Amino acid sequence: MTRTLNFSSGPATLPEPVLRRAQAALWDLDGTGIGILEHSHRGAAFRRVLERTTALVREVGGIGDEFAVLFLTAGATHHFTLVPHNFLGEGDTADICHTGVWTGKVIEEARRFGKTHLACNAGPAFDTTPAALTYSAAPRYVYYVSNETVYGTQWAAPPASPPAPLVCDASSDIFSRPLPLADHGLIFAGAQKNLGPSGVTLVIARKDFLATRRPGLPALWDYDSYEREGSLINTPNTFGIYMIGEVCAWIRDQGGLAVLGERNARKARVLYDFLDVSRRWRGHARPGSRSHMNVTFRGDSPELEAALLARAEQAGLSGLAGHRSVGGLRASIYNAFPEHGVQRLVDLLGELEG
Amino acid sequence: MTRTLNFSSGPATLPEPVLRRAQAALWDLDGTGIGILEHSHRGAAFRRVLERTTALVREVGGIGDEFAVLFLTAGATHHFTLVPHNFLGEGDTADICHTGVWTGKVIEEARRFGKTHLACNAGPAFDTTPAALTYSAAPRYVYYVSNETVYGTQWAAPPASPPAPLVCDASSDIFSRPLPLADHGLIFAGAQKNLGPSGVTLVIARKDFLATRRPGLPALWDYDSYEREGSLINTPNTFGIYMIGEVCAWIRDQGGLAVLGERNARKARVLYDFLDVSRRWRGHARPGSRSHMNVTFRGDSPELEAALLARAEQAGLSGLAGHRSVGGLRASIYNAFPEHGVQRLVDLLGELEG
Repeated sequence: MTRTLNFSSGPATLPEPVLRRAQAALWDLDGTGIGILEHSHRGAAFRRVLERTTALVREVGGIGDEFAVLFLTAGATHHFTLVPHNFLGEGDTADICHTGVWTGKVIEEARRFGKTHLACNAGPAFDTTPAALTYSAAPRYVYYVSNETVYGTQWAAPPASPPAPLVCDASSDIFSRPLPLADHGLIFAGAQKNLGPSGVTLVIARKDFLATRRPGLPALWDYDSYEREGSLINTPNTFGIYMIGEVCAWIRDQGGLAVLGERNARKARVLYDFLDVSRRWRGHARPGSRSHMNVTFRGDSPELEAALLARAEQAGLSGLAGHRSVGGLRASIYNAFPEHGVQRLVDLLGELEG
Repeated sequence: MTRTLNFSSGPATLPEPVLRRAQAALWDLDGTGIGILEHSHRGAAFRRVLERTTALVREVGGIGDEFAVLFLTAGATHHFTLVPHNFLGEGDTADICHTGVWTGKVIEEARRFGKTHLACNAGPAFDTTPAALTYSAAPRYVYYVSNETVYGTQWAAPPASPPAPLVCDASSDIFSRPLPLADHGLIFAGAQKNLGPSGVTLVIARKDFLATRRPGLPALWDYDSYEREGSLINTPNTFGIYMIGEVCAWIRDQGGLAVLGERNARKARVLYDFLDVSRRWRGHARPGSRSHMNVTFRGDSPELEAALLARAEQAGLSGLAGHRSVGGLRASIYNAFPEHGVQRLVDLLGELEG
C-alpha cells in the first residue's frame, strides 16, 4: 500500500529499507531464533548490536576516541536537567544561546542548579540564530540548540569562539549534515527525528569534559556512569539502539553526512524558494538562519491555513500543523523524508494560492 | 523457522501473535499509511494507542480511578532514585524489605535523600521473603520488590499491615498473577519481562500518594508531572506503549491474570518438583518464597553446570546462566514462555543427572 507523506516533527519518517529489516528482526535477529525485543541486553547477540551501532555512529559522525558515544533511555528533555545537574554547581554560570521554546525550558532547569547568562536572545520573534554573542566572564559551558523545531531556525555553524565547552541539543538535526565536533563538550539528541524511534537518546561527550562533572551524583543521573558501564548501567532501550544502528548503516549507504547535507539543503530550498515568491504564503525564519529540517510558514489568513491542512490530509500529506505553542504550519523534512514529497507540498500550496 | 526457547531474565520472550502484529504495525499502523515508530506522539493515531493501552492496563490489572496509570521512559532502576527524590525528605525514613541485589541498590539511593530502616533482611542467602517484619516508628513508605530476579524469590502476598503506603518494584512479575493494589502507594515495573520491550516503565500510583510528593522538583523527575500531562510531558517511548497495549490485549485474550497466575504456577511447579527430588540439582529459594518467574538452581559441581549450559545451547535453550553477581543457573519463565519449554529443560536436566 502507499505510505502517507509524513511531515511530523518527530517521531518522524524512517527509511523504508530500515523498517523492512526491523520487521524481520522483530521475529528473528540474525538467525538467533529470538527477536531483537527479546534478547537479553547482556547476551552475545545484543552485545554485537551495541558494538555495531556504536561503530556506525562513530564512522558516520567522524567521532574519535576522545569522545564517548553513549545511549541513554529517557528523551532529550531529560538532559535539560541532567546537564546542569552534572556540570553546574552553585555559583557557576551557564551561558545559553536563547533561540526558542527549548532553550526557554533549559534556562528554567539550569536555574535550579546555578546561574544563567543569555549569550544571545532571539526572542520574541525567534526567527534568527543571532550572529552576535556576548559571553559571561567564566561560563561553565555554552549551551545552544542546533536546530529549533518549533520556530524552524538552524545554526549554520556552531556559536563561534566559545570561552567554555559547547553543549548542544542536536535532537532535530543530528546526522542531517556533517557533525561539527570542535569546541563541543557534549552533544545529545533524542533519536526520534533522524536516528530511530523515541525513547532513546544518543550522547556524544568529550571524555575530558565528562571528567569535570560534579562528584557524588546518583548513578542513573551521572553521565560518567554510562561511560564506565558502556551504556549498560541498567537495561537500555535495546530496540532503539538496534534501530540507530540500522539508520546509520542506511546513512553510510546513502553516501554519508556530506551527501545527506546537500540533499537536505536541496529539499529545503524547493520550499523556501516557493515561499520567497509566494503572494499568500510566507516563511518564518530569516535567510541565514533557516532550518533545513523544519520549514515553518504561515498563510495570509487562518482560513487559508485551515484549507491547506484539510486538503493536505485528503491528499495523503500528514502532520503539517505547526507546534501547538505557535500555530501556523510546519513541514518537517528530516533525512528520510522523500524529495518528491516536498514537491507535492509546493504544488498544493501553489494550487491554494489560486 | 523454529524459535529458540528463550530463558532470558529480560528482555524476554514475548507472545508470538504480538510480534506478528508489531511487524505489520512497523510499516503501517491501523491503515494510516505511517508506521508506529513514525507517528507523532501528539497525533490522533498515537493518542488512540495511548488511550487503548491505558484502558487495557486498567482492565487487565483491575485498576480503579484512584490510581494514575503512567508510562515513563527510562527503566525501573531510575525509580530507585526517583522514589526517594519524590517522597523522602531529610529526616524521613523509608522502611525497606531487603531481599536481594535490587533492594541493595534501593537502600543506597534512598540514603542520598533520607534515612532507611530494614523492615526485614533476607541476606546473606536471600532465599526467602521473610514473614516477620519490623517497621520503624513512622516510615514515609514501605518498599519491597515483589519478585527478586537474581535470587529467584517472590512474595506470595505483599508485606502485611504496613504503617505507610507500600512502594513496589514489580518489574519481574507485573501481570503474571492478579495484581494486589490494597495498601499500595506506587508500583513501578520495567516492561521488558512481562509487558513489552525495554525502555519504558509502567507506573501505577495512588493519586493521593502522588499528592504528598516533595515540592519544587524538576518536571522530568516529578511523578506528578506525568500524571498532569498524561505521560506526554516529553516524547514518550511510543513503540513501548504500543507494545504494552498489545501484550495486555493478549493477556486479556488468555483469560486474564487469574488464568495466567495458575498457568505460571503450574509451569514453575514442573521445575521445582523435579529439583526437589533430584540427586544432582537443587533449587535456591525455599518453599513459600519460590518465584514463579525466575527459578534459580545449582548443580552439584561447576562441571555439571557448564555441561548443562553447553548442552542447552546446542538444543536451542538459551539464557540459562545465572545473574553475573551470583552464578549458578536461572530459568526465567515469564508469561509468554511456553509450558513445553519448561518440560524440555526438565528433560535435559534429567538426562545430565544420568
